[in-house]
Amino acid sequence: MKQKQLNVIETKAREWLLDRGVKVQDIAELTYHLQRSYFPHLTIEDCIRHVEKVLSKREVQNGILTGIQLDRLTEKGLLDEPLQSMLKKDEGLYGIDEVVALSILNVYGSIGLTNYGYIDKQKPGILSRLNDKSTGDCHTFLDDIVGAIAAAAASRLAHNSDVTPTS
Amino acid sequence: MKQKQLNVIETKAREWLLDRGVKVQDIAELTYHLQRSYFPHLTIEDCIRHVEKVLSKREVQNGILTGIQLDRLTEKGLLDEPLQSMLKKDEGLYGIDEVVALSILNVYGSIGLTNYGYIDKQKPGILSRLNDKSTGDCHTFLDDIVGAIAAAAASRLAHNSDVTPTS
Amino acid sequence: MKQKQLNVIETKAREWLLDRGVKVQDIAELTYHLQRSYFPHLTIEDCIRHVEKVLSKREVQNGILTGIQLDRLTEKGLLDEPLQSMLKKDEGLYGIDEVVALSILNVYGSIGLTNYGYIDKQKPGILSRLNDKSTGDCHTFLDDIVGAIAAAAASRLAHNSDVTPTS
Amino acid sequence: MKQKQLNVIETKAREWLLDRGVKVQDIAELTYHLQRSYFPHLTIEDCIRHVEKVLSKREVQNGILTGIQLDRLTEKGLLDEPLQSMLKKDEGLYGIDEVVALSILNVYGSIGLTNYGYIDKQKPGILSRLNDKSTGDCHTFLDDIVGAIAAAAASRLAHNSDVTPTS
Repeated sequence: MKQKQLNVIETKAREWLLDRGVKVQDIAELTYHLQRSYFPHLTIEDCIRHVEKVLSKREVQNGILTGIQLDRLTEKGLLDEPLQSMLKKDEGLYGIDEVVALSILNVYGSIGLTNYGYIDKQKPGILSRLNDKSTGDCHTFLDDIVGAIAAAAASRLAHNSDVTPTS
Repeated sequence: MKQKQLNVIETKAREWLLDRGVKVQDIAELTYHLQRSYFPHLTIEDCIRHVEKVLSKREVQNGILTGIQLDRLTEKGLLDEPLQSMLKKDEGLYGIDEVVALSILNVYGSIGLTNYGYIDKQKPGILSRLNDKSTGDCHTFLDDIVGAIAAAAASRLAHNSDVTPTS
Repeated sequence: MKQKQLNVIETKAREWLLDRGVKVQDIAELTYHLQRSYFPHLTIEDCIRHVEKVLSKREVQNGILTGIQLDRLTEKGLLDEPLQSMLKKDEGLYGIDEVVALSILNVYGSIGLTNYGYIDKQKPGILSRLNDKSTGDCHTFLDDIVGAIAAAAASRLAHNSDVTPTS
Repeated sequence: MKQKQLNVIETKAREWLLDRGVKVQDIAELTYHLQRSYFPHLTIEDCIRHVEKVLSKREVQNGILTGIQLDRLTEKGLLDEPLQSMLKKDEGLYGIDEVVALSILNVYGSIGLTNYGYIDKQKPGILSRLNDKSTGDCHTFLDDIVGAIAAAAASRLAHNSDVTPTS
């Protein structure tokens, strides 16, 4: 019964990501971007495998469901003020999105912190689209969550590799 | 202009707490409960003063607004499944409430961790009422947030005191 | 080669724990103490199995080695002032021991926070002996690390169980 | 008496930084580098003022003293194996340095995470020198600590500013 419940949660978290336009492949490309210089034989398939494992963690699923829920409610204008405006404009002093991202990162330890911060600033690949405010979509939480999953997958890859890059 | 905006956010965070039945005095009593054995001359007024300072921090206000918003939406049944059920029953494997609590605690450093965990388990004072599921109210986030504010105020008190208890 | 290196680190972390008087059984008893009321069929052997899994995580090994190293150097008086005195007396405003404990806890998510704080305050079993200052030993880091491993094992147990306690 | 004790700790933390070749000005330049595009009228003097405030926080001082102590002991070869080798080569899977950095960052909330990760990857200014392994010096902890202080100062600046950049 528990197993079934967990599967529902993982299935839903993956559906919600897809529904917001984020494919496993998109996240894996961020991980590849982060790690290819350290691991010359790295393939996108390796990265996909690590992203899949990150997505199987309950803390990660909790973060995905909570963050996307808040993004959706923001788009529909269903939050109360002043929260509605803060999330709508992704206000710089609002940090609960980073807090949720950190809870995802921490599952694979602190070594992902640098990678997370780096791609959050550089906005490669899917992160660029998620930050495009011109679409009318709200991805205040999702962009941080996607960056955190990609950085967590990079940490997992480093933990399971034969090569240990210096930090 | 910025000052005005900050004041709106602090005012709203305090209003939302009151609206959910949590007075500054209630939180100060938790802090008093945590610290009176270390500081024999401690008064409730001292604790109120420290709780007020904790409430003036923007990170704390962000946590209050986000957590109470999610509790309210849960009560109204406005969240999507499976999140609605997870928050409704305060599910044990859902930890985003603790994640938000930790972001409040961290503003006054790691020394508040023990106090937070202790009152979250013991549920003294207002925390007992917030955990009473028989009322039909949902305080999945709020009980953790109130415990974290009380523990953060205890840390602030220790940082500003003449007496340094051993940890 | 990597596998071999990891094994050395895990082996050493376990040796250092034993050398400081902490057996896997001691930690498992803390986990049992935390969880037996939620899981009536729980055995010490179950708890040992979860503690073993926690000890296999690299972040946990890093925390054990770093914390015990600092405790040892403190006992030998080899740290520079004012750090030597701060660690010697386990000063209340020094929180790096809790910071390291948190990095261990986070590997199994935020749901262990409450359990960690609770046993850190209550000091059952081995934690009572580690906090006995009359022995001349210094366990400023180790007591927090042992509590965090026990709480992480309790989280792991909850994640892998058929029964989901409310948080 | 407490006031005096705190001053000793702050004074020592500042002395240790200087002794390791890190001036307040060096850290302020990192903060300036991070924030100048958001705040066109920003001066180095503004940044120095915020770095000074960050250095006045006890958690930050604890992190500085603990990290530099471990770096010094590593240089002298006084740590036990395998920790000595892990810190000597700044091993990629050792994350306690990032854990300590995070405890510094968290004092000013989660909004500094991105800035920390960014400069830790880019290594501008003083961070480039601290990462130069050819000198024989060991700065495994110090480089992360300096980056975290600079990012915390950037967060403090944003919290106290009239202009709110989007995150």
